[in-house]
Amino acid sequence: MSQDRQTPRVGIIGTGAIGGFYGLMLARAGLDVHFLLRSEFSAVSQNGLRVDSQVHGLLSLDNVQAYCSAADMPPCDWLLVGAKTTGNGGVGPAIIQAAAPGAKVLLLQNGLGVEDQLRALLPDSLHLLGGLCFICVHRTGPGQITHQAFGAVNIGYHSGPAGQGSARMEIVEQGAALFQAAGIESVAMDNLDKARWQKLVWNVPYNGLSVLLDASTTPLMADPDSRELIQGLMDEVVQGAQACGHALAPDYAQQLFKVTGHMPDYRPSMHHDFAEKRALELEAIYARPLAAALAAGCDMPKIRALYHALAFIDRNNR
Amino acid sequence: MSQDRQTPRVGIIGTGAIGGFYGLMLARAGLDVHFLLRSEFSAVSQNGLRVDSQVHGLLSLDNVQAYCSAADMPPCDWLLVGAKTTGNGGVGPAIIQAAAPGAKVLLLQNGLGVEDQLRALLPDSLHLLGGLCFICVHRTGPGQITHQAFGAVNIGYHSGPAGQGSARMEIVEQGAALFQAAGIESVAMDNLDKARWQKLVWNVPYNGLSVLLDASTTPLMADPDSRELIQGLMDEVVQGAQACGHALAPDYAQQLFKVTGHMPDYRPSMHHDFAEKRALELEAIYARPLAAALAAGCDMPKIRALYHALAFIDRNNR
Repeated sequence: MSQDRQTPRVGIIGTGAIGGFYGLMLARAGLDVHFLLRSEFSAVSQNGLRVDSQVHGLLSLDNVQAYCSAADMPPCDWLLVGAKTTGNGGVGPAIIQAAAPGAKVLLLQNGLGVEDQLRALLPDSLHLLGGLCFICVHRTGPGQITHQAFGAVNIGYHSGPAGQGSARMEIVEQGAALFQAAGIESVAMDNLDKARWQKLVWNVPYNGLSVLLDASTTPLMADPDSRELIQGLMDEVVQGAQACGHALAPDYAQQLFKVTGHMPDYRPSMHHDFAEKRALELEAIYARPLAAALAAGCDMPKIRALYHALAFIDRNNR
Repeated sequence: MSQDRQTPRVGIIGTGAIGGFYGLMLARAGLDVHFLLRSEFSAVSQNGLRVDSQVHGLLSLDNVQAYCSAADMPPCDWLLVGAKTTGNGGVGPAIIQAAAPGAKVLLLQNGLGVEDQLRALLPDSLHLLGGLCFICVHRTGPGQITHQAFGAVNIGYHSGPAGQGSARMEIVEQGAALFQAAGIESVAMDNLDKARWQKLVWNVPYNGLSVLLDASTTPLMADPDSRELIQGLMDEVVQGAQACGHALAPDYAQQLFKVTGHMPDYRPSMHHDFAEKRALELEAIYARPLAAALAAGCDMPKIRALYHALAFIDRNNR
């Protein structure tokens, strides 16, 4: 397959709900997208990818460029990593195999400090970026994804050859442009850490409470006590961000809270992880933000209580 | 049955695990004890009360003076109320019917401010006291009680004709002497509010976490995260007590924590209430302490988070 190398070649490492959705959207927009799969390789090779979207309708990608080994992938200019943060130690070799020289690696993952472990495994010549996805999407079967709402991706630069200079913003803007060309809202953020704290304002309350209270967003937003608990947790995230030097917009938490009240009933990814007895992403979403805020002199006691409760539940779930 | 009225006559209002255990112990010590029952009246009248105690062995009371209506009870000098705090609005009439003139009413209940609602329903001539039971006991069937460990009752005066003077301590000591005569440890406390805060150091973490994490004490004490959460909650109770003017002993929380680690595996009463879809005692054990501490300028954020989570769970359980 000959490629016009003016068009960036994109590799998707971990084709779950996130990797599958964005990969399909980019492929449908004309980009050259290659998908690395494991257990779903046969199904997706044969039947393609399907996104049942309440926003875009029923979308399909029939001839998926699917691989079960990264060694078989062509060199990619952008690598989008949709795997769980709990597996970040394992994706290093696949990224190195699939990366073109000077490739940009974008971790589409929640939580704080998720790039650090992977950075140590990558050559210095690769750019590492983080992307925060504001989207309601989940996998329903092999190559089958349901998209309920939203889709925006906020991108920031973590580390790599662009260093601290202005070149890093050019790369971040290239990343945002990729998504924008596929009709997806995307913001180039000048501070990845701040982008991660922003997203935590949503993930800290909703991911954890969905497991702790065995509830999706609609019942959580309908009950006066869970509403007050969500707002208390959000307030602590905002205080933690502030302590770490990131002043979020004054009404940021309140806006997210309102939006969540109006969105379709949604089970956060952590609820799916719990139900399927996978490890919960507690390190990235709770432990690291708690440690970072505490190091900056800010305790987040409600989040700490939630974290310990989830750690107990997670340990007894596996 | 003629009574030596030198011997106090004791009425048990609510013969569950607590009322049944202490009533049986007092009756076996020779006191004239009368039991008010509802659904278990027939079973207990016919078969008596049984306490399977890991401390005292197998104890039974065959000829139980049982009543299904307080109107049939003889006038009692002491009334021990073992009903749930959630039913305190309903026990007023029974107490009035069963009370001798100047009777002492002792609420064997956990939580803060549990006497206030009942006080408004009682004549001024009745003494009202509170008792905090440090005991592992639960009901296994009609008139069947399992006693795993401990038994001490700390007693304090709430309100009544003794006013604020020294007469109140005499009455509290009479109450403690009743239990002591039955071989039960009992401390006359000069401050009921302080006694209630002390007991909250145990009830706040263990009652709530047993429901939230669906776990008895042994797994809660075996996991590093639940241990840290328990200690964090205990610390907040101690701070709340301090703010309300009650300085607990510096090692009080740590002692309770240690003792709980060595006691037999125990399901707190709230876990039984949850499993049987009864209302949880959230008002007495969480909401009132939170309000009292906040009024004294002390927030207890971990307890507040736990309370809201439990309120959500309780509302969805019934």
